[in-house]
Amino acid sequence: MCEASAYLIKDGKETLVLESVDILEPLDESGFMLKNIFGDQKIIKARILRMELVSHKILFSEDTP
Amino acid sequence: MCEASAYLIKDGKETLVLESVDILEPLDESGFMLKNIFGDQKIIKARILRMELVSHKILFSEDTP
Repeated sequence: MCEASAYLIKDGKETLVLESVDILEPLDESGFMLKNIFGDQKIIKARILRMELVSHKILFSEDTP
Repeated sequence: MCEASAYLIKDGKETLVLESVDILEPLDESGFMLKNIFGDQKIIKARILRMELVSHKILFSEDTP
């Protein structure tokens, strides 16, 4: 399977937000809805920092660019 | 491998932008840098509409939300 884990980078530290993410959709208010292959859903108020799909990683940041 | 193909949705039509995308990074000016597993790189001026990782799809839209 080709899902990825979503991490939040804050103060230089990486925290797992949701593993095995399948669906990612932007929300109106500068956030994202994440849904994983187990049906778990999470909303994250952060911006995308970088995605590394081959490494199965989605990195978010709460900091402004 | 778990790369995904990037498509641009415009006027209801899906156009392939870049296949086998590994890295995705937002740019300052509301766009994204895409880099695939072959080292090809592309800049797309669009917003993310939806990602479906298990289906290996990244969908972009040029339309405003």
